[in-house]
Amino acid sequence: MEETFVPFRGIKNDIQGRLLCYKQDWTGGLRAGFRILAPTTYIFFASAIPVISFGEQLERNTDGVLTAVQTLASTALCGIIHSVVGGQPLLILGVAEPTVIMYTFLFNFAKDRPELGSKLFLAWTGWVCVWTAILLFLLAVLGACSIINRFTRLAGELFGLLIAMLFMQQAIKGLVEEFRLPERENPSLIEYQPPWRFANGMFALVLSFGLLLTALRSRKARSWKYGSGSLRGFIADYGVPLMVLVWTAISYAPAGNIPKEIPRRLFSPNPWSPGAYENWTVIKDMVKVPVLYIIGAFVPATMVAVLYYFDHSVASQLAQQKEFNLRKPSSFHYDLLLLGFLTILCGLLGIPPSNGVIPQSPMHTKSLATLKHQLLRNRLVSTARKCMGKNASLGQVYGSMQEAYQQMQTPLIYQAPATLGLKDLKDSTIQMASSMGHTDAPVDEAVFDVEKEIDDLLPVEVKEQRLSNLLQAAMVGGCVAAMPLLKKIPTSVLWGYFAFMAIESLPGNQFWERILLLFTAPSRRYKVLEEYHVTFVETVPFKTIVVFTLFQTSYLLVCFGITWVPLAGVLFPLMIMLLVPVRQYILPKFFKVAHLQDLDAAEYVEVPAVSFHLSPEGRMSRAMSSADDGEVLDGMITRSRGEIRRTCSSKATSSCTTPSRELKGIQSPRIYSPRINVLRGDPSPQLSGRSPSSPRTRPSNLGKTG
Amino acid sequence: MEETFVPFRGIKNDIQGRLLCYKQDWTGGLRAGFRILAPTTYIFFASAIPVISFGEQLERNTDGVLTAVQTLASTALCGIIHSVVGGQPLLILGVAEPTVIMYTFLFNFAKDRPELGSKLFLAWTGWVCVWTAILLFLLAVLGACSIINRFTRLAGELFGLLIAMLFMQQAIKGLVEEFRLPERENPSLIEYQPPWRFANGMFALVLSFGLLLTALRSRKARSWKYGSGSLRGFIADYGVPLMVLVWTAISYAPAGNIPKEIPRRLFSPNPWSPGAYENWTVIKDMVKVPVLYIIGAFVPATMVAVLYYFDHSVASQLAQQKEFNLRKPSSFHYDLLLLGFLTILCGLLGIPPSNGVIPQSPMHTKSLATLKHQLLRNRLVSTARKCMGKNASLGQVYGSMQEAYQQMQTPLIYQAPATLGLKDLKDSTIQMASSMGHTDAPVDEAVFDVEKEIDDLLPVEVKEQRLSNLLQAAMVGGCVAAMPLLKKIPTSVLWGYFAFMAIESLPGNQFWERILLLFTAPSRRYKVLEEYHVTFVETVPFKTIVVFTLFQTSYLLVCFGITWVPLAGVLFPLMIMLLVPVRQYILPKFFKVAHLQDLDAAEYVEVPAVSFHLSPEGRMSRAMSSADDGEVLDGMITRSRGEIRRTCSSKATSSCTTPSRELKGIQSPRIYSPRINVLRGDPSPQLSGRSPSSPRTRPSNLGKTG
Repeated sequence: MEETFVPFRGIKNDIQGRLLCYKQDWTGGLRAGFRILAPTTYIFFASAIPVISFGEQLERNTDGVLTAVQTLASTALCGIIHSVVGGQPLLILGVAEPTVIMYTFLFNFAKDRPELGSKLFLAWTGWVCVWTAILLFLLAVLGACSIINRFTRLAGELFGLLIAMLFMQQAIKGLVEEFRLPERENPSLIEYQPPWRFANGMFALVLSFGLLLTALRSRKARSWKYGSGSLRGFIADYGVPLMVLVWTAISYAPAGNIPKEIPRRLFSPNPWSPGAYENWTVIKDMVKVPVLYIIGAFVPATMVAVLYYFDHSVASQLAQQKEFNLRKPSSFHYDLLLLGFLTILCGLLGIPPSNGVIPQSPMHTKSLATLKHQLLRNRLVSTARKCMGKNASLGQVYGSMQEAYQQMQTPLIYQAPATLGLKDLKDSTIQMASSMGHTDAPVDEAVFDVEKEIDDLLPVEVKEQRLSNLLQAAMVGGCVAAMPLLKKIPTSVLWGYFAFMAIESLPGNQFWERILLLFTAPSRRYKVLEEYHVTFVETVPFKTIVVFTLFQTSYLLVCFGITWVPLAGVLFPLMIMLLVPVRQYILPKFFKVAHLQDLDAAEYVEVPAVSFHLSPEGRMSRAMSSADDGEVLDGMITRSRGEIRRTCSSKATSSCTTPSRELKGIQSPRIYSPRINVLRGDPSPQLSGRSPSSPRTRPSNLGKTG
Repeated sequence: MEETFVPFRGIKNDIQGRLLCYKQDWTGGLRAGFRILAPTTYIFFASAIPVISFGEQLERNTDGVLTAVQTLASTALCGIIHSVVGGQPLLILGVAEPTVIMYTFLFNFAKDRPELGSKLFLAWTGWVCVWTAILLFLLAVLGACSIINRFTRLAGELFGLLIAMLFMQQAIKGLVEEFRLPERENPSLIEYQPPWRFANGMFALVLSFGLLLTALRSRKARSWKYGSGSLRGFIADYGVPLMVLVWTAISYAPAGNIPKEIPRRLFSPNPWSPGAYENWTVIKDMVKVPVLYIIGAFVPATMVAVLYYFDHSVASQLAQQKEFNLRKPSSFHYDLLLLGFLTILCGLLGIPPSNGVIPQSPMHTKSLATLKHQLLRNRLVSTARKCMGKNASLGQVYGSMQEAYQQMQTPLIYQAPATLGLKDLKDSTIQMASSMGHTDAPVDEAVFDVEKEIDDLLPVEVKEQRLSNLLQAAMVGGCVAAMPLLKKIPTSVLWGYFAFMAIESLPGNQFWERILLLFTAPSRRYKVLEEYHVTFVETVPFKTIVVFTLFQTSYLLVCFGITWVPLAGVLFPLMIMLLVPVRQYILPKFFKVAHLQDLDAAEYVEVPAVSFHLSPEGRMSRAMSSADDGEVLDGMITRSRGEIRRTCSSKATSSCTTPSRELKGIQSPRIYSPRINVLRGDPSPQLSGRSPSSPRTRPSNLGKTG
């Protein structure tokens, strides 16, 4: 994405890019069939549960002026609008914790002023929203999102981890609260007597840990050994919602003389109870707000605008990380513009506005990648089986698979047909086959393990469409009506779910993986390499990794500390924005540019080609050092699975690839990325995507984070 | 072991065999150094915790005549004597659940007779013990243990699983009890009021599941990625006792106005409190028992004798399974004789007698196998490293490792020196090395991954010695003095520990693995093969496996049902003895002899050589089908790790080994066992150990279960 501050240019580009694939966004989603329900339900829960919990928090903080009904309504409304007319449909909108903190502050401010009071509170926040929207319009029009490029992995992942910490903190806080007397409750009630409070707390521990452990397990069901494939698939897809149901059911198990208030459950007024929908007519009151306060609303509005600008863009960025190999363009500018409109809308309706949320947005992309993988896999497996039924040779089988793969590809207008390089794959496949003496012989399943091969070959791809986002937002809206059912969920299950979300957001976060690396025994560090396929472990000395990670960790802790400061805490995004100049001007003074580029690639840096750094941990570099032309396919599959397979053993590899090592040194300081999009048909073994000089075959990508 | 019923012959053979290695039993144990403490502590906890819990049970059932003090004293006394003068030092003795049930019955019988009453109860049980001992003497002298051969895997594993079920049942029962009012307690106490009872139950759930999950995790610490090697080793060795401490500490965490009786803790009188040691003088009262009752004591004595004969022998057999590759002889006859003496001793002291226990005895062997592995591994790694430091070639490295391995071998007088076949290994090693072009070149760690190689090469061996048994028994004795400390352990931690023991006893039980196989998705069954290296999955049709396993499972459930029948339940061992004729005469009518032999090898069957059965699940047989001379080492390592490594891929393998398949068909219906004792120096790739016709190089083994 070019850095341009010409007014409207960013928005225009975004709209043009997304319009080209708008129709496909819907047809693609519909074509996925009922399978789209898996990511939809998964994200629906990830979206609804925190929103309900934030609603409860607001309810306590605003004396019941705002409740879960309002937060759910805002999330559903903004979600539906965004999924239909928004730019990036991978982005999930919702009422987030900073919004809750902000509204709490605004409420405390308003209720002490006789001119406002809690009666005009919502009308006043309406004005705050108007000002915020105006600021957002300005930012969008002037192309402020262009500088999102400068938000490197360093900032994005730090923010992701910070959000995970905040979720985990909420889970722990919530659990501790289960042992305490709730505020504003009558302490003489039987369920708040010490024995029952203790019992409630212990029960909460059981329920929340039960949910957390079973939910984490169920996500891995696909690799279970037991049960049929479809059952395992079902559990992996719907296990988390299922576990919420199961543990809610278990919470009803204790019978006898246990007060029915134990365990504590969600509290929220029904949307049809009197007073719950008073705020919908807030627009009428907005003219009653004194002019001084209308102007004064500009001050909090600047803070909200900064917050939303940052949150929305980073959530969008994290949902479009390079690893996902997205094919449709980004839409930062236009989405920010739309967010402005949504903010005004919410303000006028008297509901707190929504913005792009973490970790739900990246979770959404991840779950759609799983969906795409399933779809592709099923198609290719059936194609391969059919072909093998006709006594085809290995080459023919691959050929037919490539054909089927091409058919599955999104036929995008703006994209060059990806037919180049298909021959490449075929060649190397056949070469491999001939080395095993199979070239022309018919293959059977005993020789060619179809499902495993296909799993290995398939690149990471995402089912990019609008349907899952629309459906999940609609389901969130349905929650408003289903409030009596939702109220059956114990709060402790909620806390378990918060912990689950925090943990689910960790894998794939390289910052987190580096923290783990610090605790990994030296002799086992090579395992990290096998699992995560990270370049930096190869190319950067371990000491540098340690220093860089410690710096990042301290910065994270400072940010976390700031969130504890009353009010000011809401502006922690400023701290993260500060990372941009730190990364650009200060870090290069302490780290070598090449190392920094490997740890945290920045688009604005041109790295000189340095010779391949053979790390002192000879062992760690070993598995990565094959790059012969014919070996690319091998090496790739090898690395992507963490196993040494095919013709070359790890030992043989290290002894036979010395020349290629030199070759690489000349070309680039980087190494082949672990998952090369073979079937997609790149013309050459793609260099690590993060390299600024890597050849680009997909012009569509240029408009995105790349 | 030959079936001989010549009086005293079995006992004489046992004593002769064990005397030869008696000195080494002690020196070997002492030479292991402080490392012996790992299996010792592990078994001490596994031994003491159930004994304490059974003591509590007895205390309730006998109105406090017998308590945990007596069960601990019996376990310690018998354990110390057995470890010093007993035959098989792998066998762990302890007061077991059937003994508790029996004593409960005897107490209920005695207390209702005016001639006995609870005062003469212990004196009368003294007579029961005398009769039992006489019967045990007879059984030992007449060689009744010879027929232990007829107890095949079928019976032993069924018994093992039954015990695991009983432990799990105890864990669940105990947890449910935590929610209830304990018997004989004052229901008006505050801690027994409904809210506190509920709180106690919930707390118990947290503590027991906490212990169970963390203990299971800690056992796998050695394969963790994080932390230093020594820390991981420490956690794996001492994790379980550590977790008991940790969760006991956590049970003290709740402060404030929680009654100190929550959670419930172990209850037992201190041994120095008045009345706790009255029974030590029971021998004086024995003459006061009416003659009729002295004679009548013969009836329960027969039941106890049958029970002990079976329990003791099967526990000993399970501790000496073939998979452990034990090198010292068994001692069934002599141990049964000694058990007779121990029973009299306990009877005269007025404490319940101990016998060989499951699952502690096999757990003991397993933990000693881990110890031996660690010892061998450390030695070989340091030897290999030293050798590689001198720029040695791969062949030299292996040579020096073999030398070190030989030095570590127990120098047993009665054993032929195991030097044959060493050249074999060297040859195949060098062959392998040359295929990679390394023959004479010095090797370095980057090429030769010492620790991994050695882990792969080492056979399963057990540190057979007496020290760990003696120490654990002495520590159990120490528990009597440490009663005030033990009473700090919450009962819920105990229930978690029971569940842990049940789960720990499962791996390695082929019956259990077959049950799991039934639930394994067909496409993933080959994974079972990779993990457990079981022959039958290869050679027996899946349908036959299913039928056999279902039969065994139904039988298990019947046995489990019988344990629920009051009193008669104590005789469930008879049901398991019934399996001997069932296996010998009935099962062959329903299953092919060859299949039966693979599923449940019986020494009395001579199997005709049938042609290799290529199972319909082509996939499952694939990974196992390499047997070329040069490939043996490869294939072995491959299979034992579940990964395809070295020169041959799975594809290449399946295409190049068709001839060897035929070769195998001629030789034997069986396939190479996955872990061949390469370093030990067998002259040929050893055939599956269970084959009766397999070549035996170690005469010492003949005297054992083999």
